[in-house]
Formats: sequence, C-alpha cells, structure tokens
Amino acid sequence: MSVRDYVASSRDRYLEWYTEACSIPSLAGNPEGLASMAAWLEGKFEMVGASVERLSYESAPDALLALIGPPGGEVLVYDHYDVQPVDPLDLWLSDPFSPEIRDDVFYARGAADNKGDLVARLAGLDTYLKLWGEIPVGIKLLVEGEEETGSKSFPSLVSRYGDKLQAEGCIWEGAGLDHAGAPEFVFGAKGLAYVELNCRGLNDDQHSSVAVYTPSPVWRLLDALQSLRGADGRVLIVGFYDDVRKPTRADIKMLKNLPFDEAGEKKRLGIDEFIGGDSGLDFLMRTYFEPTCNIAGLSSGFTVPGSSKTVLPKEAMAKVDMRLVPDQDPGDIVVKLRRHLDGHGFADVTTTTFSMEHPVRSPSNTRVTRAALNAAEAVFDKPPAKSPFMIATGPMYPIAHTLGIPTVSPGGVCRPSSNIHAPNENVRVNDFLKTIEYTVNWIDALAKTPA
Amino acid sequence: MSVRDYVASSRDRYLEWYTEACSIPSLAGNPEGLASMAAWLEGKFEMVGASVERLSYESAPDALLALIGPPGGEVLVYDHYDVQPVDPLDLWLSDPFSPEIRDDVFYARGAADNKGDLVARLAGLDTYLKLWGEIPVGIKLLVEGEEETGSKSFPSLVSRYGDKLQAEGCIWEGAGLDHAGAPEFVFGAKGLAYVELNCRGLNDDQHSSVAVYTPSPVWRLLDALQSLRGADGRVLIVGFYDDVRKPTRADIKMLKNLPFDEAGEKKRLGIDEFIGGDSGLDFLMRTYFEPTCNIAGLSSGFTVPGSSKTVLPKEAMAKVDMRLVPDQDPGDIVVKLRRHLDGHGFADVTTTTFSMEHPVRSPSNTRVTRAALNAAEAVFDKPPAKSPFMIATGPMYPIAHTLGIPTVSPGGVCRPSSNIHAPNENVRVNDFLKTIEYTVNWIDALAKTPA
Repeated sequence: MSVRDYVASSRDRYLEWYTEACSIPSLAGNPEGLASMAAWLEGKFEMVGASVERLSYESAPDALLALIGPPGGEVLVYDHYDVQPVDPLDLWLSDPFSPEIRDDVFYARGAADNKGDLVARLAGLDTYLKLWGEIPVGIKLLVEGEEETGSKSFPSLVSRYGDKLQAEGCIWEGAGLDHAGAPEFVFGAKGLAYVELNCRGLNDDQHSSVAVYTPSPVWRLLDALQSLRGADGRVLIVGFYDDVRKPTRADIKMLKNLPFDEAGEKKRLGIDEFIGGDSGLDFLMRTYFEPTCNIAGLSSGFTVPGSSKTVLPKEAMAKVDMRLVPDQDPGDIVVKLRRHLDGHGFADVTTTTFSMEHPVRSPSNTRVTRAALNAAEAVFDKPPAKSPFMIATGPMYPIAHTLGIPTVSPGGVCRPSSNIHAPNENVRVNDFLKTIEYTVNWIDALAKTPA
Repeated sequence: MSVRDYVASSRDRYLEWYTEACSIPSLAGNPEGLASMAAWLEGKFEMVGASVERLSYESAPDALLALIGPPGGEVLVYDHYDVQPVDPLDLWLSDPFSPEIRDDVFYARGAADNKGDLVARLAGLDTYLKLWGEIPVGIKLLVEGEEETGSKSFPSLVSRYGDKLQAEGCIWEGAGLDHAGAPEFVFGAKGLAYVELNCRGLNDDQHSSVAVYTPSPVWRLLDALQSLRGADGRVLIVGFYDDVRKPTRADIKMLKNLPFDEAGEKKRLGIDEFIGGDSGLDFLMRTYFEPTCNIAGLSSGFTVPGSSKTVLPKEAMAKVDMRLVPDQDPGDIVVKLRRHLDGHGFADVTTTTFSMEHPVRSPSNTRVTRAALNAAEAVFDKPPAKSPFMIATGPMYPIAHTLGIPTVSPGGVCRPSSNIHAPNENVRVNDFLKTIEYTVNWIDALAKTPA
C-alpha cells in the first residue's frame, strides 16, 4: 500500500486526533488547558512507541521531548502546543475550540499555528510504523508550550537540557504552502521586540472641556509614536538599522527564484498596493530584509462603538511590535528605543518589554535540509519555494545559535489564507493529509541521504 | 424661620429626593431608566403644585415643562435628567446608581451633572412654598432627557414648542463653584463637534509579519490625526480659526476679575504645567477663547493589558471632540475637517458625526442675571466669579438664539473635583443644601428686582 493510500484510508482517525488536539484550549492564562494538551501529547507519543520526557523550567509549561528511532545523528523536530488568544471572539464563525470542517476546511484556533503540523507529524510517525514497523532514523521531537507568549523560558530550557537536544539538524515548525500551493522552505526567522508604550499624564479621566489647558496623554503618545517613524515608513529610532545585514548574492538569487503570488496576496489582504508600490525583486528584498515597526494595539479613553463621550483620557497605550532581521539584537533595539524616546523629550512615556526574539539564519545546504527538500517534490503540487528565512518569528535562536544546530522550516499545513493569530484560523483537510505523507517521506529520504 | 434653617431641618428629606433621583439609571440606551426618571420628576413637579406637560419629539425621550407661579415675564429654568455612561466601571469606588455619602460627599453618576442642581431647584420651590405659601414669579422648568448625547432633538423641540417656552430670561443648568467655593456665573457656552474617524484598510486582522509589506490602517489613522494638529497644539484644519471672535475689552476686564486657583487645578489634574506653560490672563484668555481638538478615545487591534499579540489590525478608530468658541459653527467645522482630510490624501479615513452644538453668548446685564447675581452674595462663601461663557457645552443655542432668550448659568452644586463625566462623580452635601437656599433666594430676588 502506498503512503498516500494508507493516509487516505486513515483520514477519519487522523482527523479525530486533529479535532481532539484543537479542542483543548491550550493558551497562556489557561494552565489547565496547557496541562491537558501536554498530557494528550504524551499519550500520543507513547502510542507511537516514543520514550517521553518532560523538560521543566521554573513556572513555564513543561516542554515535552519524545525520542524514537535509533540513537546517533538524530534530527530534532520542533513544534509548540500552545496557541494564540482568540479575541475578537465575535468575528469567529464557529467556536475556536470546537473544531468544525466546512467545505473540506478545518477551522479552529491552533489549526494552522501549529497543531496542524504537530498532529501531522504524529500521524506521519504512526503511518511509517504501520507500513514498515520501525523508524529508521533517530528523531527527537521537542514540543514547548510557551511559544505564543514569546518562549520566555525556552533559551534557559535549551541551555539546561542541551545535552539531550543535540542533533545533526533541526526541522522546525512548518513554514507552510504559498498561494500556489508550493511548499515553502526557510532557514531561520526574523526576530521580535514587542514593547508596550504607556503615557500616563493625569490623575483621572477628565471632562474634555479642560483639554483647552490640560496636556493630553493621548496626543503625547501619538507624538512619541510619530517620532519613531518617517513619512515614508522608515523607522527613525536612532541606530535602528545599524546591524541590518545586507542580502548576499546567494540570497538575491534565492529570491529571484522564489515564486510569490502578489495579486493573490493583495486580494487576500484587501489592498491595492504593497508598501511603496513595490513588486518583484524589490518587493521580496523589502519583505525579507527590512525590519518593521508595527502598532499591534492602541487604546485610550472612550471607545464604545456608535456612541460618544466627551472625555480627556488620563492615559494612552500602544503595543508596538518590531520584526527584526539578521543581525539586529532585540535587547539592543529596546535600549535604542528607550534612548530615542528619552532623547526626543519623551522620558515620561514608559516602555514595557513583552517579547524578545533574536533573528536567526541557518545554512540551506545541509544533509537534513537536502533530505527535507527532496522529499517534498513527490508530495506537493509544486516544487519547493525556498527563501532565506521566515518573515515571522520563531524561538529558534537557542537551537541554531546556542546549540549550533542548523534549522530548516519545511512545507506544512499553513497557507496565506490560514488566518493565523486571527479569527477563523483554518487549514485545508487535504493540506493536513499531504503533510502527513510528507513527514513519512522526509523520514525515508533522510535514511537514504548520504552524509 | 430662616431659609437656611428650614433647609437644614429638611436635610434628610431633600437628600432622600437626591438619592431617589440618582438611583435611576437614566442614560442613553436605557429607555426604561429614562422613562422612570421622567415619571419621578413628574411626581415631584406635581407635589410642588406645578402643572406639567410632556414635550415630545419623534423618538427622543420626552422633555418635561413644569409651570408654576403667576403668568407673564416668566423665567425659564433649564436642566436635563439624563446622565453620562458609567464606564470605566471598575474605577468606581461605589456603584454609580447606588448613591453613597462618604465624609459628607454624595457619590453617584449624575450627582453633579446635573441631578444635583435639578433636585436642589425642586427642593428650593418646596422650601419657598413651605415658608411663604406661593411662588411670586412665573417659572417655567424645562427638563430634557437627551443632553448627554448631544441634545439632537432639542433644536426641533424648541422650535415646535417655542410659544410655550417664551420667557424674559433663562437660568441654565448650574455653572458650579470654583476651587475656592465662589459661585460661577457664565453667559453662554462653548460649542462642540464630536466626530469619529475610522480607517479600515484590510479584510481581516493579520499576523504582523506581513506589516513589512502591508500598509497599516493604524499608522494611517495616526498620520491623519497628526495632520490635524501642529507641534504647538494649534489646530491645522484649514479655516478652523476663521470665525473665532476676538475677546472684547469687557471680556478681558471680566477675566481680569475672575479668580482662578491655578495651583489647585494643577494639583487636581496631576500636572506641573498648563498647555504652553500659561498662567494668569494668558491662561484665562486661552481657556475661554481657544477652541480644542481633543482625542476622547482611541482603539485598534490587541489591547488586553499585560499581554502581547502580534497582529496587524485591520482597522483603527479615534473619537475626536472639538470644543468650539463663538462664532465657530459646528456644521462648518465638520465640513472643513472632511475637506482637510480629503485635501491631505486621507479620503479613505471616514468621518461620522455624533454631536454638534453651536457656541452661545448672552449679555451679562439683564434683569434676570442681576437678580441671580445679587441672590448669590448672601448664600455662598465668596462673591460671584463671572466669566464670559462656560468652557463646557450646553444645548442653549435654540433658547438663546432661536427664541432669543438670554441665558445665565449660575452657581450650583458642581466643583472642579466633582468628576463630571468620569468615575466617582460627586457633590458635597453642603453644596447641595446651599444650592437649595440659593434657589429660594433668586426667586425672591427676582420678585424684588425692577425691570
């Protein structure tokens, strides 16, 4: 029986696993949900014959490390079992933790990020075992529970358990499929500095008549925010771009070969133009090699829709997320932000750091990446679409930098239309099944790829 | 028995009325609360022997018109029975609709704005009748239920019932007491244009990694807002100041005599400096004769305190309230705002108008105002503090302009510390009792003031 046929015949069973996993509200602030998800995973790992260990670090949710296959030259596989918050809940068409399949699309919080790849990998191991009885290469599956809140404990956890995590290469959380269905391969990720800015200027909210003589914390916060960014969108924090590494000739070549459906992406977003009117290589160069300064949230005063209240708010808040590119350092960027605010007369605007992730780059030509790329050809509709690193963030720095294990994120369940981090997160059932098949194939390819 | 003694001996009964009035949640969106408040007032008006009529206009809450005393040369008294919303509810120390007296201060939503003056006026009529048997001058009490949402129906209602509302002068909702306890007298009010700005740029909230190529509706809204205002706080809407009337010599003289406790106001607000570092006459000139462009609310994306979510919001909203001075026209200002946004490339930023009020000025030397001023001397701790008009807004334009009845807002229950429109709205019990006494006194003074 072919791998594809076996997966097709097991469709209902694997979708049941997927439904079980996505029914568990494993998100920050819900310790029972996180614990329940870890226990569910333990059960599944044991079912496929892995030996499982819990990696603890202080009050963080336990990470799980499952070992399967022969020792030596192992490949590490990274996923996470926590998910993003669900609000705004009213925009969901079905309950985020009651998975629902509509028109062959699976809807649930975590369906794409990242329980889809995680369950597909479990199902892939199960399929391999059912077809051939044993896993031919050493695999270490590492699943953490703190990714969506910035993997704060992950660097310490990796340092503490470094010996157990040693591997030849690391297959990271899936990079997904592009608009056309080509499996995406990336060799690293952008970094992140997530900072909340607060301006608290008054004892209390005030009747807005006094706005004529009372400095407004709202206008002040807006002035501070505007000081961060030029009219052309360029970040004005002093020294922000100092450590941005220029793309190499190999990078540019990779981008020239990278298919990207610009029209499809614009349609999905609902926009007429990308920033700067870019397209083609310019667009890709900006996309991969430019950092961002995004406002993820803004709040002050009276915000009830459809009604009015004349208030001078006592405070205002902005959440700013900056995606960083190699070799920007999130700690350094936060220091520069603080120095910028102080230097521009905004010492009273406070900054609170929430997440910091280093950007990461790994080589794209290792034995593990070659196997992962070769295995994709037979499974997906299109040849692999390689790019230097993902434009999102993953906590791969401790693996790639501290342990020195090159990482590759291969194709997986996620598409641009998957609404990750947003309402109605979804995965096509067919993409889930293909990712199971692909998992079987890369295990096989790795066993057959010479060093 | 003196008026003061009678009021003191009736303290509990009048506080019971006050408590009853402030227990009724008469706010927009709560038709039962508004109806219940109107019925409560009707009962009280009938109790003091007034004939009461309901003035209806379309779906607006009924206004009440109560007539008492002999016909001819009547004085119109304006109050409103609706109150502001209560959020943020978590900042209240006691339930906003369960009035509570703590340290001789009465706390409730509406205690100051404007049920305190309203109930004190009812109690004043009651006291007058108890002491002298009948009201010597014609009084028309007009109480509307739509003030806090901009008195949208009031102009039409005043036009429809203009004949019934004719009067020699109008005593408006109390202006309050200043920091030192001096009764404030104002002869008009600033106007208002309240506009919500929305920028909707994307189909859905997005993972913030795409912020590198996707125009942000949040930054765009901030750019639009910043275009409205210069670094010095001056409003940059083209033509915004065109109709601002310069203060007269009489205005400047009035301001020179106006006591204002700048240190007390700064302490109350929690600030070191007023806008521009102003003080003295400069401060008062700005306060009375400058319009504002205030941001009353701001909302976009992920705003949960203490947590982070990396999202590119699909939309952003700001509520902008502009206090207007004579002779700015709110309709004209909204047109200029729209034209400004279009002219600065922000045609996509939508504007929704919530409230529009014309600024108003009345003469300060009419028979009614002289009586109202004279009556204050004996009641309050300090001589009257006169200013040209209030820096807040009232819907007096239809009365003062359409019907041509000069308006004066006299001293009343409200102090700068009363937290109107804010949590923990409050009135000192003693100020409530004094305002009852003052009501008796101005009725008496009016009967004795020659034309």
